[in-house]
Amino acid sequence: METKFRVYRRKAQYYETDQMGMIHHSNHIRWFEEARVDILEQLGMDYEKMEKRGIRIPVLSVYCEYKSRICFNDMVLIIPKIENFTGVRMTISYQIIDELEGHLRAMGGSTHCFLDENNRPISLKRQHQDVYRLFMALKGKDIFARCQVG
Amino acid sequence: METKFRVYRRKAQYYETDQMGMIHHSNHIRWFEEARVDILEQLGMDYEKMEKRGIRIPVLSVYCEYKSRICFNDMVLIIPKIENFTGVRMTISYQIIDELEGHLRAMGGSTHCFLDENNRPISLKRQHQDVYRLFMALKGKDIFARCQVG
Amino acid sequence: METKFRVYRRKAQYYETDQMGMIHHSNHIRWFEEARVDILEQLGMDYEKMEKRGIRIPVLSVYCEYKSRICFNDMVLIIPKIENFTGVRMTISYQIIDELEGHLRAMGGSTHCFLDENNRPISLKRQHQDVYRLFMALKGKDIFARCQVG
Amino acid sequence: METKFRVYRRKAQYYETDQMGMIHHSNHIRWFEEARVDILEQLGMDYEKMEKRGIRIPVLSVYCEYKSRICFNDMVLIIPKIENFTGVRMTISYQIIDELEGHLRAMGGSTHCFLDENNRPISLKRQHQDVYRLFMALKGKDIFARCQVG
Repeated sequence: METKFRVYRRKAQYYETDQMGMIHHSNHIRWFEEARVDILEQLGMDYEKMEKRGIRIPVLSVYCEYKSRICFNDMVLIIPKIENFTGVRMTISYQIIDELEGHLRAMGGSTHCFLDENNRPISLKRQHQDVYRLFMALKGKDIFARCQVG
Repeated sequence: METKFRVYRRKAQYYETDQMGMIHHSNHIRWFEEARVDILEQLGMDYEKMEKRGIRIPVLSVYCEYKSRICFNDMVLIIPKIENFTGVRMTISYQIIDELEGHLRAMGGSTHCFLDENNRPISLKRQHQDVYRLFMALKGKDIFARCQVG
Repeated sequence: METKFRVYRRKAQYYETDQMGMIHHSNHIRWFEEARVDILEQLGMDYEKMEKRGIRIPVLSVYCEYKSRICFNDMVLIIPKIENFTGVRMTISYQIIDELEGHLRAMGGSTHCFLDENNRPISLKRQHQDVYRLFMALKGKDIFARCQVG
Repeated sequence: METKFRVYRRKAQYYETDQMGMIHHSNHIRWFEEARVDILEQLGMDYEKMEKRGIRIPVLSVYCEYKSRICFNDMVLIIPKIENFTGVRMTISYQIIDELEGHLRAMGGSTHCFLDENNRPISLKRQHQDVYRLFMALKGKDIFARCQVG
């Protein structure tokens, strides 16, 4: 399974810098979301499909630790990993790695639950077994070959 | 009518700076929106009320001219003015003025139409006469005493 | 000391919403910064002064837990508290409270160190005793009367 | 010259949506910048090189006209064109085109001057002839094959 995923690459944009000359720390949270959306899409569970099936995945919490500065025009890899998944909750970790040097620039995580279109909690195990099996199969796995980097 | 409106004051935030040490030029467009929302609220036409009546005011175009840099922690005044209003279209101009020095930092504009909940164009004159009269009364007026500043 | 501080009030902006109709979760991190900047200013330690003395306070980590949705035009109070301070590290917690209903919408935290203009770690205790005493005096204190809300 | 440039592709991100379910209009201004940075890089004049040579290209004005909504996950092409260039001023136009349908979603422009490291105006013709010739060669040209789309 490892080889079929593309790692999410992202260039740090000028408008994301701050007056310290580095990417403002709030953007890392947005990049986590980009990587999360991307891996769901690669899993065949893009936002539209999930929405049509009535599955929403809100953010319950986020955190980020900043290791070293990311500058304008740096190319980074954002590497998500499903750390835990119970069918009603999911925890994803993220590494942000400088593509050129392979250094870990930041790491973080997000926790999620699953809601239906009326904002009621869903158990994926009972209601969406195919989605449940997909997430369960990825749980704890380093799904990118490049994940060893850094 | 001039004296009853508060001018919209806004502090430039750290996360709005860029690596040139000034507020990134995309934020001015957001500040225009803040001032537009604020004046509509002061007119008794806040977003919720408008939405309940089925009036939406999308942005058709925006522009901004940058006169001089705005820095972190600068307090600015954002001064909208209804330059034109026909009942089906509205043009608003904006001045961004440094509160401390009274200098014009940027100026711009936005054009809007009016849509109902099904995204069909509305004529305010025929369908919402009270709103029509409000906008018409403000057309071309400097509604803030401070508007002369700069 | 409690009564002399203003609590930081903030209106949720339209451009901060996302397509779920609520404030996107990345903005809370920015609001924490706004409240942090504001309390430092109220303490007489605004960014410019700190910079002139060669003190910078970078973000080492952030986190946020989302309790319930914040919507466009909601007025929120953002209440920081220095949870820990050693002279070389500082941990600040934040509560985001709905002003109208007094409900806790989100809570979070940030950790910081202190650097000089050459990005070398500073011990405030040895190098900036007045700043050290200020932070130490606030450590663990609910500095806002409204902090009990929620 | 037309064939050697890659067109700038960009996915609309979730955090860029607003509560109308489309990309907030302020983001288009940021996308213009992304495309501008990208074409400068493709021309061999990336930000770092320009900065080392003491050339800065600030934004004097921007505008954008919104033709139709861009939604989350839409892939767009952002196509810049140097409309005018005098050596002291440059005007760039932009088209934002939906990759899937080929429709024009928005169009806009930005004007720029050239400053040295002390913020004094530069004449590229006199001071940086190679850069002058590059921009002059592109002036008025549709540099992308795909530019006909839409």
